[in-house]
Amino acid sequence: MSLNYKEFATEQIPLIDQEMMSFLKGHNQSELLVEAMNYSLAAGGKRFRPLLLLGTVDFFDIPLEKKHYSVAASLEMIHTYSLIHDDLPAMDDDDLRRGKPTNHKVYGEAVAILAGDALLTEAFHLVSETTLDSSLKVELISLLAKASGASGMIAGQMEDMLGENKQITLDELQKMHSKKTGELIKFAVEAGVTLSSDNMEVKKNLVEYAECLGMAFQVKDDLLDVIGDEAVIGKKTGADAAHDKNTYVSFLGLDGAKEAFESYCNQAQKSLNQSKVLLGYPEKETLLDAILEELKVL
Amino acid sequence: MSLNYKEFATEQIPLIDQEMMSFLKGHNQSELLVEAMNYSLAAGGKRFRPLLLLGTVDFFDIPLEKKHYSVAASLEMIHTYSLIHDDLPAMDDDDLRRGKPTNHKVYGEAVAILAGDALLTEAFHLVSETTLDSSLKVELISLLAKASGASGMIAGQMEDMLGENKQITLDELQKMHSKKTGELIKFAVEAGVTLSSDNMEVKKNLVEYAECLGMAFQVKDDLLDVIGDEAVIGKKTGADAAHDKNTYVSFLGLDGAKEAFESYCNQAQKSLNQSKVLLGYPEKETLLDAILEELKVL
Repeated sequence: MSLNYKEFATEQIPLIDQEMMSFLKGHNQSELLVEAMNYSLAAGGKRFRPLLLLGTVDFFDIPLEKKHYSVAASLEMIHTYSLIHDDLPAMDDDDLRRGKPTNHKVYGEAVAILAGDALLTEAFHLVSETTLDSSLKVELISLLAKASGASGMIAGQMEDMLGENKQITLDELQKMHSKKTGELIKFAVEAGVTLSSDNMEVKKNLVEYAECLGMAFQVKDDLLDVIGDEAVIGKKTGADAAHDKNTYVSFLGLDGAKEAFESYCNQAQKSLNQSKVLLGYPEKETLLDAILEELKVL
Repeated sequence: MSLNYKEFATEQIPLIDQEMMSFLKGHNQSELLVEAMNYSLAAGGKRFRPLLLLGTVDFFDIPLEKKHYSVAASLEMIHTYSLIHDDLPAMDDDDLRRGKPTNHKVYGEAVAILAGDALLTEAFHLVSETTLDSSLKVELISLLAKASGASGMIAGQMEDMLGENKQITLDELQKMHSKKTGELIKFAVEAGVTLSSDNMEVKKNLVEYAECLGMAFQVKDDLLDVIGDEAVIGKKTGADAAHDKNTYVSFLGLDGAKEAFESYCNQAQKSLNQSKVLLGYPEKETLLDAILEELKVL
């Protein structure tokens, strides 16, 4: 497997997509519903979370199989449903996502709500029907529900909404992000480990890697809103400041946010290196290194 | 256990409710989110689906335990999420449900969307964490996702929306209802059997009972909109005709719809009797008889 992130992504994304599309095609009847679900699934996502999951499996030198793609696909379906619902007029009211009209702009609000509900439900359906030991399926379903549910991603979304136009602390901002985006990123790595190894010490270190990666991911998002190239990031910059949003930059300033970003990246690298030491290949270049390197580029 | 439906309901509903509330309380952090979820869970539902599940377990003379209440609670959580989302302005735009303000009227649309998403996610979470064999959990999660997902309840909701203000056939109406409401009712019985018995012949007959019950349930709903007592059914009558809705009454007339209703009830009774014969107690009065008797009252 290629250790260059872009080659890895180019190689793997069609396989992740095929897993999502073939599952949905095999299980559905309402054409318009499936069309709306596929529209958002196909809308050019970077597939960061499923790639991270697959990269974690590869970290253990385990060949990628159908079962890995199933769990990766279910994760991307959950992520996609959350974007559809977040974009709704009652929520963030976004007309564009990755440069394309959002789901409700194309299909109307009612269909967008149902397409989100269906992606969420079918994500659990997919894990329940893949070829894996029942006990592993249950563990993964429990982890996925926890990460995306009422004390995970959805709680983060609530806190984000309640914090708008309100003075919050940096600590509250971090906690909100660790739920809203961090939990699914952590799940990607946790699920990858769960599918690959019983080594709890390695798991602990890789979960730390994932947590730091998740924080860096969010600080980067805030940084790019200030210093990013609109053509590259696919959305207008300066939106956070215009909306007086709480961001790492508004708390720490541009330089402070950059320092925080580097610090999270360094911590992620340290935890990753420790995992490699534990597994006996301290010098190995892995996909998880490549993912971190890719993230580091501002 | 009491064989009177009302006594059974009075006895069991607090136990179903306790299971839902204690699970949510133990797993959540965002107070407002939990409050919004609890608001709709507590809004006076008749708990028809979970009672049907528990009644099915009792049909096999199996004492009700924690695991049964967990699955029953998850089913009610899925049903409740679907009501919250159906009531949204973009969907049916209802201000009242069972005589109380709908979720979005109290908490706003954004919170209502998230409360629905959270109930859906936590329903799968609950089944994944209950005390049951992993293989049974996976089977139940798969059945529940199928019943409520993109080829089940959500497909029915889509077809219902697309059929509004449009000429459809009686066959299309029936197919839509069998997905929109029938699938979850069927799941109640299927899950009850799955938790209780490996007898496939009994399962087949009880699933037929559930399917007829589901159809009778919907015809009754249409009938009550014409002949019901507003004080008893908790909503205004005549709404279907006022909205020119496709209903069993609009297709078959009042007498024809009553005949169809009786026919479904009789078929349900027949399948139920056959299940009792197969189990060696043809004369036994069961909770599933009591549930059917209760449904028969117009």
